[in-house]
Amino acid sequence: MPAALRLASPTMSEEKETTNGRPDGRSPGELRSVRFRNHIAPHATGSTLIEWGDTRVICAVCMDDNVPRWMKEQKVEGGWLTAEYSMLPYSTVSRKARDISRGKMDGRSTEIQRLIGRSLRSAIDLKKIGSRTVWIDCDVLQADGGTRTASITGAFVALRLAVARLMAEGLIKEDPIINSVAAVSVGIVNGLACCDLPYVEDVAASVDMNLVMTGKGEFIEVQGTGEEATFTPDELTAMLALGKSGIEQLLQLQEAAVSAG
Amino acid sequence: MPAALRLASPTMSEEKETTNGRPDGRSPGELRSVRFRNHIAPHATGSTLIEWGDTRVICAVCMDDNVPRWMKEQKVEGGWLTAEYSMLPYSTVSRKARDISRGKMDGRSTEIQRLIGRSLRSAIDLKKIGSRTVWIDCDVLQADGGTRTASITGAFVALRLAVARLMAEGLIKEDPIINSVAAVSVGIVNGLACCDLPYVEDVAASVDMNLVMTGKGEFIEVQGTGEEATFTPDELTAMLALGKSGIEQLLQLQEAAVSAG
Amino acid sequence: MPAALRLASPTMSEEKETTNGRPDGRSPGELRSVRFRNHIAPHATGSTLIEWGDTRVICAVCMDDNVPRWMKEQKVEGGWLTAEYSMLPYSTVSRKARDISRGKMDGRSTEIQRLIGRSLRSAIDLKKIGSRTVWIDCDVLQADGGTRTASITGAFVALRLAVARLMAEGLIKEDPIINSVAAVSVGIVNGLACCDLPYVEDVAASVDMNLVMTGKGEFIEVQGTGEEATFTPDELTAMLALGKSGIEQLLQLQEAAVSAG
Amino acid sequence: MPAALRLASPTMSEEKETTNGRPDGRSPGELRSVRFRNHIAPHATGSTLIEWGDTRVICAVCMDDNVPRWMKEQKVEGGWLTAEYSMLPYSTVSRKARDISRGKMDGRSTEIQRLIGRSLRSAIDLKKIGSRTVWIDCDVLQADGGTRTASITGAFVALRLAVARLMAEGLIKEDPIINSVAAVSVGIVNGLACCDLPYVEDVAASVDMNLVMTGKGEFIEVQGTGEEATFTPDELTAMLALGKSGIEQLLQLQEAAVSAG
Amino acid sequence: MPAALRLASPTMSEEKETTNGRPDGRSPGELRSVRFRNHIAPHATGSTLIEWGDTRVICAVCMDDNVPRWMKEQKVEGGWLTAEYSMLPYSTVSRKARDISRGKMDGRSTEIQRLIGRSLRSAIDLKKIGSRTVWIDCDVLQADGGTRTASITGAFVALRLAVARLMAEGLIKEDPIINSVAAVSVGIVNGLACCDLPYVEDVAASVDMNLVMTGKGEFIEVQGTGEEATFTPDELTAMLALGKSGIEQLLQLQEAAVSAG
Amino acid sequence: MPAALRLASPTMSEEKETTNGRPDGRSPGELRSVRFRNHIAPHATGSTLIEWGDTRVICAVCMDDNVPRWMKEQKVEGGWLTAEYSMLPYSTVSRKARDISRGKMDGRSTEIQRLIGRSLRSAIDLKKIGSRTVWIDCDVLQADGGTRTASITGAFVALRLAVARLMAEGLIKEDPIINSVAAVSVGIVNGLACCDLPYVEDVAASVDMNLVMTGKGEFIEVQGTGEEATFTPDELTAMLALGKSGIEQLLQLQEAAVSAG
Repeated sequence: MPAALRLASPTMSEEKETTNGRPDGRSPGELRSVRFRNHIAPHATGSTLIEWGDTRVICAVCMDDNVPRWMKEQKVEGGWLTAEYSMLPYSTVSRKARDISRGKMDGRSTEIQRLIGRSLRSAIDLKKIGSRTVWIDCDVLQADGGTRTASITGAFVALRLAVARLMAEGLIKEDPIINSVAAVSVGIVNGLACCDLPYVEDVAASVDMNLVMTGKGEFIEVQGTGEEATFTPDELTAMLALGKSGIEQLLQLQEAAVSAG
Repeated sequence: MPAALRLASPTMSEEKETTNGRPDGRSPGELRSVRFRNHIAPHATGSTLIEWGDTRVICAVCMDDNVPRWMKEQKVEGGWLTAEYSMLPYSTVSRKARDISRGKMDGRSTEIQRLIGRSLRSAIDLKKIGSRTVWIDCDVLQADGGTRTASITGAFVALRLAVARLMAEGLIKEDPIINSVAAVSVGIVNGLACCDLPYVEDVAASVDMNLVMTGKGEFIEVQGTGEEATFTPDELTAMLALGKSGIEQLLQLQEAAVSAG
Repeated sequence: MPAALRLASPTMSEEKETTNGRPDGRSPGELRSVRFRNHIAPHATGSTLIEWGDTRVICAVCMDDNVPRWMKEQKVEGGWLTAEYSMLPYSTVSRKARDISRGKMDGRSTEIQRLIGRSLRSAIDLKKIGSRTVWIDCDVLQADGGTRTASITGAFVALRLAVARLMAEGLIKEDPIINSVAAVSVGIVNGLACCDLPYVEDVAASVDMNLVMTGKGEFIEVQGTGEEATFTPDELTAMLALGKSGIEQLLQLQEAAVSAG
Repeated sequence: MPAALRLASPTMSEEKETTNGRPDGRSPGELRSVRFRNHIAPHATGSTLIEWGDTRVICAVCMDDNVPRWMKEQKVEGGWLTAEYSMLPYSTVSRKARDISRGKMDGRSTEIQRLIGRSLRSAIDLKKIGSRTVWIDCDVLQADGGTRTASITGAFVALRLAVARLMAEGLIKEDPIINSVAAVSVGIVNGLACCDLPYVEDVAASVDMNLVMTGKGEFIEVQGTGEEATFTPDELTAMLALGKSGIEQLLQLQEAAVSAG
Repeated sequence: MPAALRLASPTMSEEKETTNGRPDGRSPGELRSVRFRNHIAPHATGSTLIEWGDTRVICAVCMDDNVPRWMKEQKVEGGWLTAEYSMLPYSTVSRKARDISRGKMDGRSTEIQRLIGRSLRSAIDLKKIGSRTVWIDCDVLQADGGTRTASITGAFVALRLAVARLMAEGLIKEDPIINSVAAVSVGIVNGLACCDLPYVEDVAASVDMNLVMTGKGEFIEVQGTGEEATFTPDELTAMLALGKSGIEQLLQLQEAAVSAG
Repeated sequence: MPAALRLASPTMSEEKETTNGRPDGRSPGELRSVRFRNHIAPHATGSTLIEWGDTRVICAVCMDDNVPRWMKEQKVEGGWLTAEYSMLPYSTVSRKARDISRGKMDGRSTEIQRLIGRSLRSAIDLKKIGSRTVWIDCDVLQADGGTRTASITGAFVALRLAVARLMAEGLIKEDPIINSVAAVSVGIVNGLACCDLPYVEDVAASVDMNLVMTGKGEFIEVQGTGEEATFTPDELTAMLALGKSGIEQLLQLQEAAVSAG
């Protein structure tokens, strides 16, 4: 699989002509195009619309001058960060009923929002934000695979924008960001390790893995699942390599988006 | 649009030039700018983002090959149309908790989505859409007054786009649209009847009225509320005149947006 | 009461004697009989059973030495008034399941109880009732059209009785009632504007309107809905005239009921 | 009714004249006055308002041409009977929040409605009512102790009225009533066995017992509870005797109410 | 029925050979074998697994340094005791869905846990436990009739173990136990009064009664139900006698279990 | 870290004497003792109580002759397997409120039961079990770290026992088990990679990883989380090696437990 692991920058389109390749002609390590539209939600402290292939997620960061009850009771200093994830009803090909209509939170959404929360808490020193709660909201406008990794990747940009605004307003003295954070999906599709799976590959994949990593090349989360299938240590190694390369590119794209302001 | 926007009821126009006018300098009958960004949600059958001043609402129309249980039980022919309305958490200046977090639907949202549903059902002959449900989803991305009227006005554009697509695909034979529908808010602010109130005027208004009207100048809904205040028949007449004029402009803007496709 | 009931707007009264009139033989502006049975719920601070044709609603007012959390947080002075509306399961021809059995509040009930609350808040100066919550409960014992207008009209009587008792007990110093409030339904049935629609007319009506007005002839709420139909400005004018006349009669009946104690 | 009401168990009658007796001067075995107002809810198949001292409960019986899913799945013949019990918010001295406001059914209400259902199922041969569900609704309008026994006693009258109507309409061929059913509370107050406890005695009672019995003198339910206290076999015997006597009177009052139609 | 009332200790197996007897050969008053496995849940303050025939219930007592809000508001001294009862999904022959999956508490479970709470509150002087809440949890591991009586009987052992531990740790000064408490089911099966009904008898029983009694031979609760049947005073007397005898045995078995520690 | 990676069988107790080691003296790769008590829940098709150190989980498998609605609608052949996970209230040092008391499922439990379901679906060929649902229930009786891995490891034993019973009864023809499945936790504690973390190590760990693997040495799930910390590729490698070794031992212990029947 070494050739497959050669990573392409988004513009390396010359690799697309392989005949038995991916549905959209990408090489195994090639990302779909990624674009950030900042300030999509002006009432949030920071926000961006991440457009990653045909997956689009509104990522917004709001601040609240309050902390969870358990922090007060246990007299924990500093702030908290929590995340909520939802798919808008029209984000999927068949309309998805709202949680409130079904009367309860979707199990998959619960799992994803917990992942987003953990990932972003790794990005920030909560001691430095004062007695505040950072709310991360990720609402999927259009789903085509990788909504959780797009949520994390976009949320980090929104968080940076929010922090920049709070510092500009003097509400936070010291920059609390301690890690850059990005996430990407990898998987085994038709026996081949691939990076950044759209929906059509996701359903065909025997293994589905999500990686969350820092700018220092360290892991925050590794989640690999082989439902109705298993994967070997070699496959794990190949997926980790593809993911690492994808995340390096994403970190650059995030940096550019934050710089643009 | 400048000429068209300088609208006022006959008895009100002389008040336009008073120095202590509306916060944003508009004349009493002048609308904020209105813009439609169609196809914001590509997986929906039809969609638009209505940007009305600083109020922005995602309006999407999805179809479902099913009808409510009561229609089957009562053997009612044709289809159904229903609406759901929600404010995204970051649409307000202070973050608004999601319905599912609070465990129940917001009373105000319930009221608004029922109004949207009734209004759009007046636009369409449900007998002509087959045994289908039309889902109207309105999600507020940014709230600055008039979210319910923006939802109705945007939803009609999204519905027209959805119908056009279904007819192009041959799924519907005959155009089921029987009325053009638009909505606008009017109110009494500091004793003056005004059209299209932003948030700052809305909270100061002694009377708040929402009008839903057709392209033929007929009413679909008239909802006027004077919480902690009342209004006279003359004030009602003034508000109705302002609203009628505003809706005529909105109908033209909708028509242009639908034509653009 | 016979003379009082033969009421009609000036332009409508000649239509009273047409043979193909209303199912119960009333003229367009004629109300069904209205009767109040006070103190139906002795544990409430004030209560009445309003019997309006075959519509009967228990209206009760209870006081609570507490105010909503938001008032405390925002340090708003005075009290609050809130309303709850429910149809008892046996109030309809087919038994209506309780909200708690269905696990959620009925959308229509939500809308109605918000209307009742707004209407009654217009009747009272909440600054004068101290740090208390006034609970208005309206439970429909028998439904035959116009349950929301009966609820408002009856609730005002119950509120007056409650205020009288609190003043007699010295708990409130100054009378907080600032407006008389009554409500009536009007509609267009077979092309004819009619006042006070029973169920059989309500389902046949192309337009359904509810008016809440004060003793000074001012509007508190105007809600007109043309589901699957629209209405013209002339029809609106006719309905407003009929409603105004009906409300004038209701205000007298309420006054008599309150005087009776 | 005066003679009938001066009832006491043989061992108790001499205590009747002690000065330190019951708060309302009744003898231990004496019932409060009981009155039935039939047809309180005309849309129900049968209904009555039972006024038992200051306890008043609306008892209504509705029929539904359907049976629970488990009966269909297990192919059980005949019909079903189920009961719902609720205290109206204004039935208590301090307003009681509605179940739907608290989001869940009250534990006490659950227990009571299960008791009402079991008791009334003992009154009827469900095989003879066809594939129907009998809904018993008991809504407390005013609570002064004994609401569950008033509910059962009133519900039996409402059921008889409903059955009479169904038979008159030919919907049921054979009378399905197999037992007369009435219920009464008994308790130990200040060491004395008493029948039919109002609220003031109920809270002072060391033992609280509810008896449901048939016209043949047999038991349907015996429920005795000594919270924060216990009771001896002799006290049990005394309470059973008082209850039996009270129920005999109630059965006569029910019979009279049903005969009155 | 005198013979039937002859009570057998668990070891009196010679009575089993009667031909027309109970399915498992027991005499009418004979209990199934009862065994306690203490400390089944080491993180609880006290716990036992009661194995009563094929019915097995985990009974655990946890303490919480808090009291319900109503106690604080009403400034009631001392502590509180509350109980929760649940059937584990695999405790029944057909899997029973969890409450949280169905979204609401089972009515029967609500009734049972209220009974357990009342029964155990009779065992303890809550004034002597300080400002604490005693949580009684009863989870049925295997159900074969009599789960509520097993819960109460086992919970009393767990409570004694918990109290012993708290006193050993010096957290409670004075023993708060004021009554021994045990419970047993009795019923009428095929016309015969029987004690301690397993599932097969329970479904065949025309009358089902649960008795909760103290070590002094007094009643805490008497609950007899004749669904689709009634019972005579003589049958009540026979059941009470059988129950009293069963409870005497249970009290000895509990005492031995507590002594074993 | 190489020394730390040396793996010990449970009997290799000689490694325990290292001074600066783990709280319970285990070597980094040493498992706590693991024991299975089969048939803990006799009404389940298969069950076991896994006792893993001080963590104890009831694992039960029930069968249901039904499949989820989506399988019927999509006409998917074969059966389904789903899992539910819950912590009993007394399983933790401070009592944990039941889901039904809090009104919603715990987010962590949702995540865990989805993991259990996916893991066990990898063990079985659902095509071979007919149109049935396999319910896996895991209820934690005592929690001391690793409850999710104990649930998976125990559930596989319970599933094998259930399958054996169904095959013995002829309800399943062919053995549907296609993979052995076991799970273990690994983590980085004080900079040292360790296997099988009890609670005290779990809270101190900078990285927490759960591995689910098959008897063929392949991965089913890899979930590594570094909340408030990150981990390097080398640390990942070390944890994977420890986990692989631990799982090999667990697979042997499971095999022995299944053989014992």
